[in-house]
Amino acid sequence: MSLPRILEVRSKILKRNDELARDLRREFSRHGVLVVNMVSSPGTGKTAFLLETLVRLRHRGAAVAAVVGDLETDNDARRLAAAGAPVRQINTHGLCHLEADMIRDQVAGWDLAALDYLFIENVGNLVCPTSWDLGESLRLALLAVTEGEDKPLKYPALFNTADVAALTKLDLAAACGFDGPLARANLAAVRPGMPILETSARTGAGLDEWLDLLAAHRGRL
Amino acid sequence: MSLPRILEVRSKILKRNDELARDLRREFSRHGVLVVNMVSSPGTGKTAFLLETLVRLRHRGAAVAAVVGDLETDNDARRLAAAGAPVRQINTHGLCHLEADMIRDQVAGWDLAALDYLFIENVGNLVCPTSWDLGESLRLALLAVTEGEDKPLKYPALFNTADVAALTKLDLAAACGFDGPLARANLAAVRPGMPILETSARTGAGLDEWLDLLAAHRGRL
Repeated sequence: MSLPRILEVRSKILKRNDELARDLRREFSRHGVLVVNMVSSPGTGKTAFLLETLVRLRHRGAAVAAVVGDLETDNDARRLAAAGAPVRQINTHGLCHLEADMIRDQVAGWDLAALDYLFIENVGNLVCPTSWDLGESLRLALLAVTEGEDKPLKYPALFNTADVAALTKLDLAAACGFDGPLARANLAAVRPGMPILETSARTGAGLDEWLDLLAAHRGRL
Repeated sequence: MSLPRILEVRSKILKRNDELARDLRREFSRHGVLVVNMVSSPGTGKTAFLLETLVRLRHRGAAVAAVVGDLETDNDARRLAAAGAPVRQINTHGLCHLEADMIRDQVAGWDLAALDYLFIENVGNLVCPTSWDLGESLRLALLAVTEGEDKPLKYPALFNTADVAALTKLDLAAACGFDGPLARANLAAVRPGMPILETSARTGAGLDEWLDLLAAHRGRL
């Protein structure tokens, strides 16, 4: 089987995913649910960031839920249960990204009208999730200060498809000699004009700004 | 096209890769070249670890070379040039792993008899490189203390196919509250008996032990 034929098959599968994602996005928007697709490396701190986000949004009176994807384990769902919000775990068993039909299956039967925000924590990977639309209205790319400032240049497609970037683990910036201006310049090089938040789930830095940004986006649904 | 058919195609491509990798391994071994395939998340510190490894091996009188893989940029090759060893950069332009034919193409024309060690820095990814044998004799999985102790459980296949693990950025362990015994237990759970090095490219911790391990493996080729 030739490479063009493989690419054609892949393209058909992606097209089906895109159509489903479009339907999901329409359904979410109709019910006023802002859906956020969180993408990053493994170990960027998506779960800690999400936990703080859920807790703080609930504190503001919002109805929140989350779907988390991992190859194996339900560690993240168990950690996030501390937020008191509904959390579903997807195990992909080898697949390096989530797909729209997995999201459809998880939210089937949910009362979307009663929900304000749905967060999808994608599988930790800077390549695979890029092409898979999950029906989100906002794609958040996270980049930990511990990962190195060059990651946006090395994985441009993923950062280019994001709407917002969050630098995470800012509390470790000094310890690892993080060059903030360089990281910002690299993000801007692959995605000019993208908002960049500077956050720490540990200290709470940047999280109010993040919540305000979410509320603004939800207001525009 | 059905999923079984896609899997069959994938399986054929992998079989071709495995055969080529076996030939490469035989060729490398015949010339006394120990080949190390380095796999990890993006941002685990593969390049810093490799730079220190190249410098220290050269200091011990060994002939070393490296091939580094990234989706985009030649940042790593430029950083590694500081070691004074031959370094080749592969850009995969979207592909999330290296394959055996890329290695074959890079080393074509090299005088393998004059080489002692060849290091392959794979694309930063905890999923894709798993199934792709590059003809290495040793697969090293790196895990940074900043990434979280649970990564071996979340990405068991990658850690399970490794021969050696290196914990990296140990100098940041206290700052990020790293739980060493838990990380070791999780590595041992997916790959019982695998040697685990505790390293820091910044302080040099664990690197002599790593070099001794390499020499022992090379002696057994």
